[in-house]
Amino acid sequence: MNVMTNVQRLAVAQRPAVNKNFEPSFELRNVYCYLVENICIVLSLVLFIPNQAKAEATASENQQGISGDFWWSQPYPKPFDASRLRHQPSFISVKGKDFVDQAGKPIVFQGVSIADPDRLESLGHWNRELFGVVASWGANVVRLPVHPVAYRKRGKKAYFKLLDQAVHWANELSLYLIIDWHSMGNLETEMFQHPMYETTLTETFAFWRSIAFRYKGISTVAFYELFNEPTRSNGTLGQIDWKTWKKMMEELISIIYAHDDKVIPLVAGFNWAYELEEVARDPIEQEGIGYVSHPYPQKAERPYDPNWDKAFGYVAEKYPLIITEMGYMKADEPGAHRPAIDDGSYGPLVTDYLAKKGASWVAWCFDPEWSPTLIKDWNFTPTMSGAHFRKIMLQRDKADPQP
Amino acid sequence: MNVMTNVQRLAVAQRPAVNKNFEPSFELRNVYCYLVENICIVLSLVLFIPNQAKAEATASENQQGISGDFWWSQPYPKPFDASRLRHQPSFISVKGKDFVDQAGKPIVFQGVSIADPDRLESLGHWNRELFGVVASWGANVVRLPVHPVAYRKRGKKAYFKLLDQAVHWANELSLYLIIDWHSMGNLETEMFQHPMYETTLTETFAFWRSIAFRYKGISTVAFYELFNEPTRSNGTLGQIDWKTWKKMMEELISIIYAHDDKVIPLVAGFNWAYELEEVARDPIEQEGIGYVSHPYPQKAERPYDPNWDKAFGYVAEKYPLIITEMGYMKADEPGAHRPAIDDGSYGPLVTDYLAKKGASWVAWCFDPEWSPTLIKDWNFTPTMSGAHFRKIMLQRDKADPQP
Amino acid sequence: MNVMTNVQRLAVAQRPAVNKNFEPSFELRNVYCYLVENICIVLSLVLFIPNQAKAEATASENQQGISGDFWWSQPYPKPFDASRLRHQPSFISVKGKDFVDQAGKPIVFQGVSIADPDRLESLGHWNRELFGVVASWGANVVRLPVHPVAYRKRGKKAYFKLLDQAVHWANELSLYLIIDWHSMGNLETEMFQHPMYETTLTETFAFWRSIAFRYKGISTVAFYELFNEPTRSNGTLGQIDWKTWKKMMEELISIIYAHDDKVIPLVAGFNWAYELEEVARDPIEQEGIGYVSHPYPQKAERPYDPNWDKAFGYVAEKYPLIITEMGYMKADEPGAHRPAIDDGSYGPLVTDYLAKKGASWVAWCFDPEWSPTLIKDWNFTPTMSGAHFRKIMLQRDKADPQP
Repeated sequence: MNVMTNVQRLAVAQRPAVNKNFEPSFELRNVYCYLVENICIVLSLVLFIPNQAKAEATASENQQGISGDFWWSQPYPKPFDASRLRHQPSFISVKGKDFVDQAGKPIVFQGVSIADPDRLESLGHWNRELFGVVASWGANVVRLPVHPVAYRKRGKKAYFKLLDQAVHWANELSLYLIIDWHSMGNLETEMFQHPMYETTLTETFAFWRSIAFRYKGISTVAFYELFNEPTRSNGTLGQIDWKTWKKMMEELISIIYAHDDKVIPLVAGFNWAYELEEVARDPIEQEGIGYVSHPYPQKAERPYDPNWDKAFGYVAEKYPLIITEMGYMKADEPGAHRPAIDDGSYGPLVTDYLAKKGASWVAWCFDPEWSPTLIKDWNFTPTMSGAHFRKIMLQRDKADPQP
Repeated sequence: MNVMTNVQRLAVAQRPAVNKNFEPSFELRNVYCYLVENICIVLSLVLFIPNQAKAEATASENQQGISGDFWWSQPYPKPFDASRLRHQPSFISVKGKDFVDQAGKPIVFQGVSIADPDRLESLGHWNRELFGVVASWGANVVRLPVHPVAYRKRGKKAYFKLLDQAVHWANELSLYLIIDWHSMGNLETEMFQHPMYETTLTETFAFWRSIAFRYKGISTVAFYELFNEPTRSNGTLGQIDWKTWKKMMEELISIIYAHDDKVIPLVAGFNWAYELEEVARDPIEQEGIGYVSHPYPQKAERPYDPNWDKAFGYVAEKYPLIITEMGYMKADEPGAHRPAIDDGSYGPLVTDYLAKKGASWVAWCFDPEWSPTLIKDWNFTPTMSGAHFRKIMLQRDKADPQP
Repeated sequence: MNVMTNVQRLAVAQRPAVNKNFEPSFELRNVYCYLVENICIVLSLVLFIPNQAKAEATASENQQGISGDFWWSQPYPKPFDASRLRHQPSFISVKGKDFVDQAGKPIVFQGVSIADPDRLESLGHWNRELFGVVASWGANVVRLPVHPVAYRKRGKKAYFKLLDQAVHWANELSLYLIIDWHSMGNLETEMFQHPMYETTLTETFAFWRSIAFRYKGISTVAFYELFNEPTRSNGTLGQIDWKTWKKMMEELISIIYAHDDKVIPLVAGFNWAYELEEVARDPIEQEGIGYVSHPYPQKAERPYDPNWDKAFGYVAEKYPLIITEMGYMKADEPGAHRPAIDDGSYGPLVTDYLAKKGASWVAWCFDPEWSPTLIKDWNFTPTMSGAHFRKIMLQRDKADPQP
């Protein structure tokens, strides 16, 4: 035993982590630590080695010796403190082919993907203002692309602080959030397109377990995008078939629903999340989900409509469809790369098409360096695509303003 | 090639790890190290930075440069030195529904689980006296719960030193040992209830391979409890079915038997090792094993007997059954938590039931902080449950004393 | 998005990794670093702590703070620069049961396995001279056994520098190369014979993906030996069957061919790469491969021919066969161990047998300490087996000299 389930532990008294007999040596150790630490601090000041002092302080924190540091006394995680949120936006759920609010009214989501919160924080751009500008563009949803490498480097606890901040800012600004596990590659062979996307099936399970435990019952966190872009990359990342992928997604959804059944899992298909053709004959066997496509301009030949219909558009007749990435830029702009190069005509074509289908969408990327970019700089000057998507979002926002 | 099997290597001469031509630069390096190390020692003494000196010494040990440190000259593991044991207790094996000694006489095991040896050593309670007190309570078996996190943190070599000590102490005191891989969760999805239980199927295989290689032919180490408490935790840890679990256990047993076929593997079922209902229609297809249940008081409704019969008791009619954990404490005692809360009436009910079934058992936990506790302090004052289990063990010990 | 495939990235301009707005604080940071680093250097000189200074310099390099160090700006890997090779040897491919050159002429390969490049570099023996001596023995192929532990310890980037050097030296000397993933054990249970062989299926996939990406189109790198010696080790490493092994190999080959379809994958069977009996009824379903056996003297009873025919020789009638390890030494020589002990009569028997079958071969090991050894010392004095294999290779080389 020696365990309490997360529910059980809230109901019982905390037991002391260190027993009486152990205390004396414990105090001695503290005296020792006190001496050592203070000598170190003096030495640091005298010798001007601030980095060194920092390293030692960290090493000291990592040593077992304070009661909370034993492996058997590590605390269980805690859920997000919902009482600190000012607003309680309507929960979003799935009804037929629509995302709907608690009154059953269909909602079309339009918004942007910002960069990874870890990146933004590292560069000094992680703040409420960023979310405020996104809201001022008429967005009602923001996508947070959590890169596995960033999640590991920062550590779960520190990363959740960033996500918590996003929840507060989004909540204040009446924005919904998509948490996106931003990997790219093959979850069966565990081969990915770049080190920043490297993860495992086990880590992916663990991530969503932690997320679902923490944000259960927080209506602002409306969507969980389970895996950004599944791809075999023309076989260079090995094989995976829809049947295997479907089973992985269903298992992930069952883990999420075991914690929180008021969130909407979003599922993508192969070819870097472009293709949903397999859904027709073999849909995900879980209720309450949405499907994802990333129809960058060079993913299909023109005329787009029949190709898009076949690849993903048909899904919108039966299930909620959300484009969680799309974008475009001219070939001579910095960072331009296939499949996102376009002369600009793609913009109206894709937004018109999605409007016709009643599909939701999120544009990539509200960052001046992650291309195709929506902004040119940190003064938020819109790019060609940014200006177009902003115009469409403001039209919707004017017609149907957020509460 | 470049390999010797464990058997082969004992028969051949050790080859020198470093060749003649390499020695000169090697000596120069040592002179350099000597100078650096001594200067560091002097500095440490002068500047009073013992922690720092320790860190450097460790760093120096980790560098390749001494012959034994090259990856190709790491020694193969060695088995436990049986010649140092004073006693050779009877090997225990399985005969029908019984554990039997070498004369074929059925043996009922009754004992306690102590805490993780790593914990006990860290807190200063890892000593022969502890085992002596357990023996004085009438126990004939002690369970050692090896937590994966502790095994990794201490390192295999250092952890095996603890287990070796346990073997010596148990051997001297005529106690048998259960080595228990003390994880809790889902070995298929590799999701566990708490970081201290985190492991992988690969690590679990490797652990039992190492254990079986080391303790082969040591009769004192009678039982290997393969995995403490398998559980889906109501789906929050993902899915796993009996068929998959059974296959994992059979593979583990085959790895163990390839090293040592005179040990008894113990297999538990889902619901935190409570349920063995699947055994009826689909038993583990390996000979010589025992089944485990953990019937804490709140795992079943009263009256207990019909529920216990159905969940695990029926197994005792065909296979050896051993309760490797049970215990209880009052709701107001420190650390009390579901499913171990009881007014005290559970104690006689469970021991009577198990006596009727001829089942063996081990009570949790001979530690004043790991609840439900058997002792109140490190003077070994029995708790309510400790007093009851001690009474039963002493009755058995009096009726059928250890040799 | 935020990704370019390896092909795409070559076609587009590199985007700046750090934006304008970030630069000021960046410069400040550099000033700070400059001060800290110089103070540290002065202190190091004054206090004579070179190791310490080194540790700090490394720590400083590891911190994010220089543009290239952010996780999102890590460069994609680059292929080997083929333009720097002086020669362009014929590509080798498979035609029926033969390895053939571009003119379709069958080639028999005969050569040696050197030790792991990481070992050789660590001991000061990694140089062109080594390859030159191998060529002077009449070899036309060299095998490079890459141990997983060495690959991880040195790091992919540094390890590839060694392999690149081998490509240059081999290319200049008209030698072909076999890159050998030198593990030994069970890739399904991920249990291996010694820590130096430890890997995972995922790491094995990743290794071959990286190798195939880097050496695509380099004819000198003719063979990829996918996994040195698969073995269950009498069940101590758990179970794996041919069907599972075959599927793993086919998947690996498909990953390799997705990058480079002008290389020859080599596949071994169980019993430490001795047995190929399963190939008869269930061959690897991929074109263009060769099969491997390691017929050390004690793997079969005498007379050898019928046993060898059955275990692996029959394969040579239908597919290219290459012995990637064989060797022998007397029982009293240092390092002698089963199954490589022999009085010397094995040598001519095995080379005659392989000549009769038209099979290629590589002898183990061109290192005075990795037994069975071909050389006695680093003056390259041949051992008994070394002298025999050299004689055979020189005969072939004389009859059919390299271009």
